[in-house]
Amino acid sequence: MVCITSGGTTVPLERKCVRFIDNFSSGHRGAASTECFMKAGYSVIFINRRGTAQPFCRFLPEDPLLTCFEPAGDNLIQLIPSHAVAVQKAVTEYHSALNSGHLLNLPYTTLFEYLEILKIVSLSLRQLQRNCMFYLAAAVSDFYVPWQSMVEHKIQSGVGPMAMELAQVPKMLMLLRHLWAPEAFCVSFKLETDVKILIKKAQAAREKYGMHAVVANELETRKQKVIVVTNEGQVLVEKDASQADVEIPLVDFLIAQQTSYIEAGGANVLVV
Amino acid sequence: MVCITSGGTTVPLERKCVRFIDNFSSGHRGAASTECFMKAGYSVIFINRRGTAQPFCRFLPEDPLLTCFEPAGDNLIQLIPSHAVAVQKAVTEYHSALNSGHLLNLPYTTLFEYLEILKIVSLSLRQLQRNCMFYLAAAVSDFYVPWQSMVEHKIQSGVGPMAMELAQVPKMLMLLRHLWAPEAFCVSFKLETDVKILIKKAQAAREKYGMHAVVANELETRKQKVIVVTNEGQVLVEKDASQADVEIPLVDFLIAQQTSYIEAGGANVLVV
Repeated sequence: MVCITSGGTTVPLERKCVRFIDNFSSGHRGAASTECFMKAGYSVIFINRRGTAQPFCRFLPEDPLLTCFEPAGDNLIQLIPSHAVAVQKAVTEYHSALNSGHLLNLPYTTLFEYLEILKIVSLSLRQLQRNCMFYLAAAVSDFYVPWQSMVEHKIQSGVGPMAMELAQVPKMLMLLRHLWAPEAFCVSFKLETDVKILIKKAQAAREKYGMHAVVANELETRKQKVIVVTNEGQVLVEKDASQADVEIPLVDFLIAQQTSYIEAGGANVLVV
Repeated sequence: MVCITSGGTTVPLERKCVRFIDNFSSGHRGAASTECFMKAGYSVIFINRRGTAQPFCRFLPEDPLLTCFEPAGDNLIQLIPSHAVAVQKAVTEYHSALNSGHLLNLPYTTLFEYLEILKIVSLSLRQLQRNCMFYLAAAVSDFYVPWQSMVEHKIQSGVGPMAMELAQVPKMLMLLRHLWAPEAFCVSFKLETDVKILIKKAQAAREKYGMHAVVANELETRKQKVIVVTNEGQVLVEKDASQADVEIPLVDFLIAQQTSYIEAGGANVLVV
């Protein structure tokens, strides 16, 4: 069993919210990884930002209903031939995954929804001990405006520049690792645009939160390669020419790491 | 001819953008209004935020491809009966509108894309003089981070609260009214959550920018009623029990206003 988080989170700037801060994330990594874990026999709880990439649908065009279908007279519609195979495959595979009972789709929008859902899921999964993996690919806000200091109404313009002070989001990785599901195999992600600080930050996150693996990715190259930081050092994981996604070798690598972790715990490996 | 803008705009907080500020807007108002203007014989240039509501598709569920279709064996798919009529109607009407040549769909994401597109469209439409309407329903950011003061890389967390100073976005309404398309009939929107300041702010915007009408709407009640502020005073526009959307009486009212404006200019009314 793996719990995958995917997409950005929003933080409101006003109580009656008109404006919010968002994190860019297409959700492609989480959707691709869901497919890879399911192929490897895992069940997946997919906690995902509303509107971001869905498993089995990553290669469809934006707004697929209006793009891939056309009128066929008498208020009937038909698939445009050039899109037909892709759309049929996507819908079939997505529904088969749901109907199999091995995919649970839990959408969120705000940071607060995200944290609540993750907590509930973690507490439910803790009994699986080492057989459970958390694969935290969501781009969670680092900063937010606490409710007490949030203005009630829409912030007014017309009075010069706006100064804003944002508080740090409490790091839920600490709670997850030490309180909610302390035995689960935990993978977090570190995205930076500055490659010079990336590995150092990934190592620091691994140590600080006791992650089993931190996947370091750089904005520009993140679809080709990542560096996985574990307690044994760093491993470069790169997709080869035969692989559509870097998530294929990445998920393979992490499953192998989790398998060792389960064996080290003295239990039998049990895929649930 | 009407140019409708719809949806929120994003402003990046970093040059290599990971975080951005966004404005909440479903795009429902712009999409509904597009339908009403087309029904009244107008051609529509629909400048809309990627991923927001599209005309003729407002009543479909979120993610309609995965929600409204199901596998039908042999990699074929079919419409789920309870959604069939709505989906067929939406696709048929949307494509008919596009194919008629009376709907042009121009998507944007950032504030900068929005402003560039609006400028190009305005300059192209200025020759229509009073026969052209601008219906500016987009929720445009009031604040942004200028490129010169924008950091190159992702803002670092872990060093306490983040202070941010945002500059005011130059008001393009002034440019549109006085430079880009000075004779066009201009309608802007004012959304507030605090009803006490709403009308005052709408009146101020009308006078400051020389709008022909400002539509004042309050976050909670905006789907039932709006107040239109013109140089003749305020008019409450409310949907009645027979109307699905407040945009039906609103668009009627604005078309009547524009018709008077065209006649006052000495030209014949010409719907283009």
